Amino acid sequence: MIPPAFILVRPQMGENIGAAARAMLNFGLERMRIVDPRDGWPNPAAVALASGAGRVLDAAGVFPSVQTAIADCDFVFATTARGRELTKPVYSPEAAMAHARALTAAGKKVGVLFGPERAGLENDDVVQANAIVTVPVNPDFASLNLAQCVLLMGYEWRRQTEVVEAVVQEMARTEFASALEVEKLGDHFEERLAAAGFFFPEAKVDGMKASLRNMWSRLGLTRAEVQTFHGMLRQIAFRLRQQDQE
Amino acid sequence: MIPPAFILVRPQMGENIGAAARAMLNFGLERMRIVDPRDGWPNPAAVALASGAGRVLDAAGVFPSVQTAIADCDFVFATTARGRELTKPVYSPEAAMAHARALTAAGKKVGVLFGPERAGLENDDVVQANAIVTVPVNPDFASLNLAQCVLLMGYEWRRQTEVVEAVVQEMARTEFASALEVEKLGDHFEERLAAAGFFFPEAKVDGMKASLRNMWSRLGLTRAEVQTFHGMLRQIAFRLRQQDQE
Repeated sequence: MIPPAFILVRPQMGENIGAAARAMLNFGLERMRIVDPRDGWPNPAAVALASGAGRVLDAAGVFPSVQTAIADCDFVFATTARGRELTKPVYSPEAAMAHARALTAAGKKVGVLFGPERAGLENDDVVQANAIVTVPVNPDFASLNLAQCVLLMGYEWRRQTEVVEAVVQEMARTEFASALEVEKLGDHFEERLAAAGFFFPEAKVDGMKASLRNMWSRLGLTRAEVQTFHGMLRQIAFRLRQQDQE
Repeated sequence: MIPPAFILVRPQMGENIGAAARAMLNFGLERMRIVDPRDGWPNPAAVALASGAGRVLDAAGVFPSVQTAIADCDFVFATTARGRELTKPVYSPEAAMAHARALTAAGKKVGVLFGPERAGLENDDVVQANAIVTVPVNPDFASLNLAQCVLLMGYEWRRQTEVVEAVVQEMARTEFASALEVEKLGDHFEERLAAAGFFFPEAKVDGMKASLRNMWSRLGLTRAEVQTFHGMLRQIAFRLRQQDQE
């Protein structure tokens, strides 16, 4: 599987090319192409800002035109801030990268076009793409810069391709208390609280006990935390007995 | 429904606070809180960089501690670059903002903590949160800055809350050709091509015609494009007749 090429079309500031390289590498993407960069190539400002992601710039291909940059691509997305008066499917970043995943898994090559900083892609660029991608920004305030747009597309690529557990990788290594252990903790508390005269008035006792049991189950305590609670309770009881004896 | 508060904890550079405000407003979020900013508040550098998103800064609350900043929150996420040795659920940005959507829809208040630029949140901050959020970056190159982290969380918030059609809002306004119109275009081509001796050899004619019919249907032509094809075909035929007469 060949990951998508991110193609910067007529980028202006070298700093933005460097920032785009960093944004790509954050999500494991290394195939950058650059079309007709304003300040030529290589660009020292790009290298300075890419620190750590310099290898993305080193491997970047430079092309004279969009046409030559996408020549080997089977499917090309054009990122634009707004819909165009062009008859082309408009994808969300999510749908676009899901489609890119399917295409690359089938051995196809995918390219994603990003326009120059100020003006974005021109219609002449967009017509060469198979589809448009638009980030669903606030219509009253849309100020994504080049590297931010690259970042969001890279994020969606990784989200669509990596098997990310939705939640809780870390939790898997945690030893949670069993239901029986939680129940015994509830027993222990109930016993001590009853001894302390906590359950009062009589008519409310069942409700109070049920609330406590519910709380213990809901907390998701670890085995160690259950032991800590037992220990705290024992210590309090110990102190109380001491006081009684004093 | 009250959208989540994005809480910048001990931010250092004013520029990054301004960039975070822009990133938030891109996705319609305006509730910023700032804990103990290094350079005091208000901060002219933040205002300069926020241009257009200044109202997010104007409305931002400044707090002396994480504790006071989250006091009214029902659920708090802490963004961290890596898992901690803490027993806390670890959410993806997607899962976190889906949960935030459910909580806010139920009238709950949600906060999201972002750490200072260099070091990120300290364990003392993270323990005050209900859950951790980690962006699934490339483990060999993780260089998200503060505003980028805010941008990705804002993007996921909007993605989880806005009804974004996966594809093709623009296409809905397009007048596509009906199946009958496509069929008539196929007839027209077939007729002209047959007259031009295109269908040859005899044994392959059925297959060639089927391929063409299949292509016309698959293209998803608009009504205007169908008319254009008819026009092109008529014009070619007209020229051919002229040449015959010369």
